[in-house]
Amino acid sequence: MAATTTLDLSRLRREFHRYPEPAWREFYTTATLAERIEEIGVDELAVGPEAYDPEDRMAAPDPEEVRPWMRRAVERGADEEVVERMAGGNTGLVAVLDRGDGPHVGLRVDIDALYIEESDGEDHLPAREGFRSENEGTMHACGHDAHMTWGLAVLDAVKQSDFSGRFTVFFQPAEEVSGGGRPMAESEYAVGLDYLFAVHVGLDHPTGEVVAGIERILAMCHVDATFKGTSAHAGKAPNEGDNAMQALGTAIQNAYAIPRHSEGMTRVNVGVAEAGTASNVIAEEATIHGEARGETTELMEYMKEKLRDTLTTAGEMHGCEAEVNVVSESPRVDSDPELAAVVADAARDASGVDSVLESADFGASEDATFLMRRAKEEGGRATYLVVGTDHPTSHHTPTFDVDERSLEHGVEVLTDAILSVGESP
Amino acid sequence: MAATTTLDLSRLRREFHRYPEPAWREFYTTATLAERIEEIGVDELAVGPEAYDPEDRMAAPDPEEVRPWMRRAVERGADEEVVERMAGGNTGLVAVLDRGDGPHVGLRVDIDALYIEESDGEDHLPAREGFRSENEGTMHACGHDAHMTWGLAVLDAVKQSDFSGRFTVFFQPAEEVSGGGRPMAESEYAVGLDYLFAVHVGLDHPTGEVVAGIERILAMCHVDATFKGTSAHAGKAPNEGDNAMQALGTAIQNAYAIPRHSEGMTRVNVGVAEAGTASNVIAEEATIHGEARGETTELMEYMKEKLRDTLTTAGEMHGCEAEVNVVSESPRVDSDPELAAVVADAARDASGVDSVLESADFGASEDATFLMRRAKEEGGRATYLVVGTDHPTSHHTPTFDVDERSLEHGVEVLTDAILSVGESP
Amino acid sequence: MAATTTLDLSRLRREFHRYPEPAWREFYTTATLAERIEEIGVDELAVGPEAYDPEDRMAAPDPEEVRPWMRRAVERGADEEVVERMAGGNTGLVAVLDRGDGPHVGLRVDIDALYIEESDGEDHLPAREGFRSENEGTMHACGHDAHMTWGLAVLDAVKQSDFSGRFTVFFQPAEEVSGGGRPMAESEYAVGLDYLFAVHVGLDHPTGEVVAGIERILAMCHVDATFKGTSAHAGKAPNEGDNAMQALGTAIQNAYAIPRHSEGMTRVNVGVAEAGTASNVIAEEATIHGEARGETTELMEYMKEKLRDTLTTAGEMHGCEAEVNVVSESPRVDSDPELAAVVADAARDASGVDSVLESADFGASEDATFLMRRAKEEGGRATYLVVGTDHPTSHHTPTFDVDERSLEHGVEVLTDAILSVGESP
Amino acid sequence: MAATTTLDLSRLRREFHRYPEPAWREFYTTATLAERIEEIGVDELAVGPEAYDPEDRMAAPDPEEVRPWMRRAVERGADEEVVERMAGGNTGLVAVLDRGDGPHVGLRVDIDALYIEESDGEDHLPAREGFRSENEGTMHACGHDAHMTWGLAVLDAVKQSDFSGRFTVFFQPAEEVSGGGRPMAESEYAVGLDYLFAVHVGLDHPTGEVVAGIERILAMCHVDATFKGTSAHAGKAPNEGDNAMQALGTAIQNAYAIPRHSEGMTRVNVGVAEAGTASNVIAEEATIHGEARGETTELMEYMKEKLRDTLTTAGEMHGCEAEVNVVSESPRVDSDPELAAVVADAARDASGVDSVLESADFGASEDATFLMRRAKEEGGRATYLVVGTDHPTSHHTPTFDVDERSLEHGVEVLTDAILSVGESP
Repeated sequence: MAATTTLDLSRLRREFHRYPEPAWREFYTTATLAERIEEIGVDELAVGPEAYDPEDRMAAPDPEEVRPWMRRAVERGADEEVVERMAGGNTGLVAVLDRGDGPHVGLRVDIDALYIEESDGEDHLPAREGFRSENEGTMHACGHDAHMTWGLAVLDAVKQSDFSGRFTVFFQPAEEVSGGGRPMAESEYAVGLDYLFAVHVGLDHPTGEVVAGIERILAMCHVDATFKGTSAHAGKAPNEGDNAMQALGTAIQNAYAIPRHSEGMTRVNVGVAEAGTASNVIAEEATIHGEARGETTELMEYMKEKLRDTLTTAGEMHGCEAEVNVVSESPRVDSDPELAAVVADAARDASGVDSVLESADFGASEDATFLMRRAKEEGGRATYLVVGTDHPTSHHTPTFDVDERSLEHGVEVLTDAILSVGESP
Repeated sequence: MAATTTLDLSRLRREFHRYPEPAWREFYTTATLAERIEEIGVDELAVGPEAYDPEDRMAAPDPEEVRPWMRRAVERGADEEVVERMAGGNTGLVAVLDRGDGPHVGLRVDIDALYIEESDGEDHLPAREGFRSENEGTMHACGHDAHMTWGLAVLDAVKQSDFSGRFTVFFQPAEEVSGGGRPMAESEYAVGLDYLFAVHVGLDHPTGEVVAGIERILAMCHVDATFKGTSAHAGKAPNEGDNAMQALGTAIQNAYAIPRHSEGMTRVNVGVAEAGTASNVIAEEATIHGEARGETTELMEYMKEKLRDTLTTAGEMHGCEAEVNVVSESPRVDSDPELAAVVADAARDASGVDSVLESADFGASEDATFLMRRAKEEGGRATYLVVGTDHPTSHHTPTFDVDERSLEHGVEVLTDAILSVGESP
Repeated sequence: MAATTTLDLSRLRREFHRYPEPAWREFYTTATLAERIEEIGVDELAVGPEAYDPEDRMAAPDPEEVRPWMRRAVERGADEEVVERMAGGNTGLVAVLDRGDGPHVGLRVDIDALYIEESDGEDHLPAREGFRSENEGTMHACGHDAHMTWGLAVLDAVKQSDFSGRFTVFFQPAEEVSGGGRPMAESEYAVGLDYLFAVHVGLDHPTGEVVAGIERILAMCHVDATFKGTSAHAGKAPNEGDNAMQALGTAIQNAYAIPRHSEGMTRVNVGVAEAGTASNVIAEEATIHGEARGETTELMEYMKEKLRDTLTTAGEMHGCEAEVNVVSESPRVDSDPELAAVVADAARDASGVDSVLESADFGASEDATFLMRRAKEEGGRATYLVVGTDHPTSHHTPTFDVDERSLEHGVEVLTDAILSVGESP
Repeated sequence: MAATTTLDLSRLRREFHRYPEPAWREFYTTATLAERIEEIGVDELAVGPEAYDPEDRMAAPDPEEVRPWMRRAVERGADEEVVERMAGGNTGLVAVLDRGDGPHVGLRVDIDALYIEESDGEDHLPAREGFRSENEGTMHACGHDAHMTWGLAVLDAVKQSDFSGRFTVFFQPAEEVSGGGRPMAESEYAVGLDYLFAVHVGLDHPTGEVVAGIERILAMCHVDATFKGTSAHAGKAPNEGDNAMQALGTAIQNAYAIPRHSEGMTRVNVGVAEAGTASNVIAEEATIHGEARGETTELMEYMKEKLRDTLTTAGEMHGCEAEVNVVSESPRVDSDPELAAVVADAARDASGVDSVLESADFGASEDATFLMRRAKEEGGRATYLVVGTDHPTSHHTPTFDVDERSLEHGVEVLTDAILSVGESP
């Protein structure tokens, strides 16, 4: 059943690592992936708006805002025509192998980076070995460089195998803002999915460990709000202001006090706040970036509605208009135990894997759940697996790194699992 | 009694207008003033640390932070040696005429600009006539360009008069942050002040109107606070955080709720707030810029202490350390009615002045009160006068402007008042 | 000009002191006053609804609630027919002397007591001398017993004088809840008032001191609110509640934070709060009793509207209906300086008075301002005077007492002032 | 194995129902139980301080406060000597059968009532049938009357059986305030417990249903706080107050905002608040009754400490002293599955029982967990079972009632389970 890839995994991953691009700005990344995929050779390759409906995107940026990123991608050598196809920030792509009768199997990997300044310390391997981010202020600090490597290598391996059926790899953009999961899940490429594998590296699992099916991926939503009031001189006419700062204070206090729910775990956070212009001016405007989560999608909805109401009335109380936007959201989905068992079997056979967990708790959120839910709606099965890696520091830190031994593990486990279900539709 | 100046007031004012520099960054401004004063010729000229003890400054910047402003001042043509004397942000200067027996008369003008982007609209005269700010992002939007013009012109006029005594002009830096008033007041140049005139343009009084003595200059303080907590993942471990955002919310709500005081008017404002880094992270840090005022210095002290306590316990409540700094403060001082009467007399005689108010309410704050208080402590008298001007929009707005007819009014009223008291020690 | 009364002031005052009745429950008090007035003999005597329109009352009680007080009054010996006339809590009365041509002069005294348990300590004179409250839990702790004594004695003295004109004494109920001022002011008895004297004892002025005209009687309003939510088990289903306790917390915090006003002094207080039934139940209901004040009636209105909005949105935020009621209110009125001068003259002539203040600051509120405002609207003048008394402890405390020497002072000053204006219409 | 009781269950339960007494005031109840137990005949009978150390009580009342309840108990016919033994509120008792070799088996029932006014409606069976509460304002609204009946009847049945070993019935006082569980658990009567059965009626399970072992009894604590500040006149001197009302508002808002915990479910509630005396007085004092819960004892401890800190600093912020008392608390304990299986077997055999649940979720708290934990610490097993009953309305409501058919069910299930373990030590 084994299949192999001739790609140099470490080299691929380092290439991606050197040029990180954040959510909805993965122009060079997408163009590079497209190039590599064409080298492998596939039956369908859909870039950006060909792969999904841009209207389905969440947390989408202002088109003007991403223009400099397009320019930079072209300057670095990306195919200008390909980049233009993504104008407005419609990044990401989908590759398909059509190989006769058999199930529709999907693999989902994500491709975006973070706004983090990568360490240039000697103790940071990418810095020491010369593949540190060349895109200052951004960094692949969550391992999506490894994920893309897996996407390509597994595509290559499946192509070279006797897989029968349809194999689709979703190179999803904008995972970090929960923005790209929905358009991928809504696209025609997700039609008829029988099996869907989503994968992540690390997450505190060591090199050699594989989690076959993650449980309890929390439903979540990102919520932004702007309070618009009226400024006034704080000394001469405090009564003439409609104080956005007071709206902010009331909003923060009451957001955290949204009642706990009897049905299960909920979360709420106001993570970022900015307000006002000068100490002697009644603040005209305040903005917050917050989020809410729930153990189930219903609980997330409960928190979202409560949060929206709380922010709206906090504005009203102080004569401010509150514009509340749900920027993005993702549902709760659990891994399918039977498909996880397939992964577990593949993992037990994989060289270098010495610890296999059938399942583990996640406790956070992931917009891979959109594709997972779609697969279930299509009558299929989905699992979210983790390939462990010894990462020196936490995800989302300037010294995060991947133990490259795990690259091989991921390719082997994923390929074997895909071929397993590919043989038995 | 009349004295005149040969200086071109409008030209002077426009020169200052073209190169605004904010508080503690008035390097080019100070150097230019020094040059002009030397052209006039004085008995003493003290620049920066020669004029006051840098330790007495309030709201002083980090020395590194002002270095680029020094470079820019030299590039524009400021005397490098003079600029270096002000290294660290010790700007401003004092000029003295020593003219035999007689009283010590002081004139205080302020020299700093604001962080405001000046309008380039056709309806904005400085833009239309080509003397708009060349220092992008900063602007003389409070008329300090007119104040400096008065400082030089009155110095020139007094020099050419038969004034007998000592005449000191305080070109005070950093008024907008209430930072420069104290060092000027504490300096040896304030010793023995018999009369002190402080002056402002505009303040909603029209061209041709003069207020001889302002009442009720509120005592005020600027208070900054930083809440330092512990960040944590908002989904996985909200309980591991010490949430600076919650400290912020509690602080805002309780600051505004500090009790009103039976002895008179008080004010409190949290004008600026910033907190957190990402929507899914418990905020590690939050900062605010606030202020408190009182109708008397005692009431300001009451508010200051309450605000300090409120911020400190708001931090404690959420496990955060609250660093609270009183960045600057200024006392309440009222104009002396007898000295105001001298100004009123001078104003009534001045050409172009058609409305003279003995006094008017201020309702805001000013660190000129430091020098005024010092004069009183020295056994002297002080008044704060306003020379009206038709300003098209409010102070501190991008289209603020001065009606240049009022330049002449100010020189005449101030010179006559100074000579009046100079004749009768 | 002097006139005298043959009434025993001390005895009268002690009678009133022994049977205190709170606002809108002054049944025995009113009946007793009516009896005494008939002994004096007047031209008109209007009790309760004869004196005013009950619809104009503020903070009026539930009719059932006052029934026991009616019963008790009759049991103590009040004329049952008179008490029945006041059914529903329409207490208080007006007495009129019609004495030929001349001005219409009014005197306003208030008659209600407080819900305070009077001290039975040996150091408390009423206890020691046997005239402590016999109506447990209520007490004349603000000197209205002295005020009634003045009302009767001055009526008697004016009757025996050569006063010419119309003299009306308003024995106003329910001052402590700002409830009785409006109906008295709206009544026909206030028509054509040329002079109106309102009087208070004590207020921190010692025996022998008289304040001829009080300034700055603040406008005020009493505001009650009830938050009605939904209860739920705090352990099993916190999310099913609409938490009136959270509405309360939000209301309190934001009420005190209503912005200060540039036009002058404002006040706000939430004085009483009650919420919930058990520690393990989400509170279904919360109630507050609050108030707002302003240096002017307009400022009070500003505070009242802000408070109403704040309470309403605090309820909304937590899914509770907020019922906000303005229970009562009184305007700002100042004493007329010319009429105060008449009082000052009378006071300077009075035996035992050794300190006369033309005016003094009040800093609190009083619903006598309704009648004062009415007098001004009628083209007349009004003053609020204070007759000092050495009171051992503050007003509204269990050991408050009146120095009875001041009873004579009040009668003399009031009578003389009334006769002064009565002689010169 | 079957054993029977000759007691009239319905009559017993109705006797208890007619004379409800709240926590630490069960004088008549305890005396009656003692009398009945003596009629049955036991080897040991320990009343009040003989059964436990009074120091271990939680939420214990002021001794003076319970004195009227003692008097009333004696008036109703309780043995005065027995009542006196409980002076200070040391109610409750323990009965023991010592029957040779064998295990130590315990049964815990609770005996206190609630401060609820029982319905006198025709639709309320106790009213209709004449056994409504004769102790106005208190009511057996949680079925403890049924629990006591079971305690006596099971004691009787075990006595008449061939049970071998030691059988202890804990008639625990003060369950509703979580006050009596600890002293019972700390007493010598709990030494060596091999099996402990705790039982409750109803809890939304219908007549004929039995839950053999309750899971997830939340750990909880009752927390009271008093904020002591300084009163002041809200109009004249708001700044002189230390406002307990503001402390209250801050406390409420921040208590509900205590962060959710990653380890599991938490709860917090401020159920009751009272503050202030008059609308125009800055509140001197405010009190709250609150609680916190956790899915584990550790989580409850987390909430308790956070709540304590929050209340303390809320006081500090407003110059008030916060006295925070943890009035009582109870740990999380789960039923032992093996002992629950014994109960389930007994239930399946019981006549009238047609639905047996091995386990069910509780979601609330119970201080039976003290004795359950003690049994586990002694190396034994414990279970908390529910005997269903059709109750017309919720527990803790004025029309709560027990379907008396369930009395028989409880006796049968408990006796059989006890004899089962009693046969096989």
